[in-house]
Amino acid sequence: MNLKALYQISYGLYVIGSRKGDRRNGQIANTVIQVSSEPPTISVCINKGNLSHEFIKDSAVFTVSILSRDTPLSFIGRFGFKSGRDVDKFDSVNYKIGETQAPIALDNTLAYLEARVINEVDAGTHTIFIGELVAAEVIREGEPMTYAYYHQVKRGTTPKTAPVYIEERKEVGIKAVKYKCTVCEYVYDPEKGDPESGIAPGTPFEELPEDWQCPVCGAGKDEFEKED
Amino acid sequence: MNLKALYQISYGLYVIGSRKGDRRNGQIANTVIQVSSEPPTISVCINKGNLSHEFIKDSAVFTVSILSRDTPLSFIGRFGFKSGRDVDKFDSVNYKIGETQAPIALDNTLAYLEARVINEVDAGTHTIFIGELVAAEVIREGEPMTYAYYHQVKRGTTPKTAPVYIEERKEVGIKAVKYKCTVCEYVYDPEKGDPESGIAPGTPFEELPEDWQCPVCGAGKDEFEKED
Repeated sequence: MNLKALYQISYGLYVIGSRKGDRRNGQIANTVIQVSSEPPTISVCINKGNLSHEFIKDSAVFTVSILSRDTPLSFIGRFGFKSGRDVDKFDSVNYKIGETQAPIALDNTLAYLEARVINEVDAGTHTIFIGELVAAEVIREGEPMTYAYYHQVKRGTTPKTAPVYIEERKEVGIKAVKYKCTVCEYVYDPEKGDPESGIAPGTPFEELPEDWQCPVCGAGKDEFEKED
Repeated sequence: MNLKALYQISYGLYVIGSRKGDRRNGQIANTVIQVSSEPPTISVCINKGNLSHEFIKDSAVFTVSILSRDTPLSFIGRFGFKSGRDVDKFDSVNYKIGETQAPIALDNTLAYLEARVINEVDAGTHTIFIGELVAAEVIREGEPMTYAYYHQVKRGTTPKTAPVYIEERKEVGIKAVKYKCTVCEYVYDPEKGDPESGIAPGTPFEELPEDWQCPVCGAGKDEFEKED
């Protein structure tokens, strides 16, 4: 059994909004699908350990913000690598309260969905929440972020099969050393730098400011390891 | 409620293999996801009216062939727009019988998964089959076909039995006259032609050879109707 076969399943990338009473939370998920056409019904798969799981169980509603392809890594990191138990993830994010009274992230969002849970299914590590659509709006045109694209960007690699792939320059001597974040697996590639944080392409990891943080999860430089 | 928001959900494209006793069948689906990590578990959403639904219910197994981005429309049409009640869809297709004794399509396949159903969930028009992985292999490297790519670039169409089906909007103000296949709803657009069949962009429908066939379902020219 080669579990890498699972890597070839395609997904999008979404902020799942939830609430418990007046408390709100959001998290990144990739497993949103439409499961029925009449009535329009969607589902999302949530890890049982997540705060969102507790919130959706309690309120029986959830929202889905469909992220655009140009969503900054820091935004995904905010919702994907922090816990709502420690921070209010919607703080300093544009959002609105939907018909379900759950928060809907609006930054980097192409379209959103709101659903009322009509069934939930135990799936081992995760629960599948099945929700009937109660609201759906398109915010702007654009390409949705896919899980594959997110990984390519985060890891700074382009598969050989991608149309944009160009044979890598193997210039001996000036090969820049990459460093990987041990928290979220983001790879810092000196050739690309970290423009979102003002780090120019060509900046070696060693020359990053000491207070530089992983653009995805916010980990410090000391959480990074040299890549083989 | 704007149901076009649902169009921005990302999916891949898969051949779902199934069996009932010695009978085999396959169909196209886009709603495959991994739902649990330990044990590895996947799910697929199947229309209750499909033969595959009957077969998976009966045998409690299914296979997933993850299609590559360069899969021809005719291959997708074979599995997506014909019924296993009328034809043996695996006839003249490379496949193998897996551990589950269900067929696994190998043509245009990057990787495949085999699963044993451990739960099924009624989702209105569809049933969600949840299956524990019993086999998984990578066949070759490549970019997977995404549902968006299939729709936007290859201009495929959606069968009415898919969970994502929504009544097509009527486009107005078209210069070149488009013709729609009444069998599978593929739209012949003269501006794009049908390069896979050697029809150059700019070829009006009327000038297509008389033996030209719908690239998706194989219907003849007389099965086409002028689009409004």
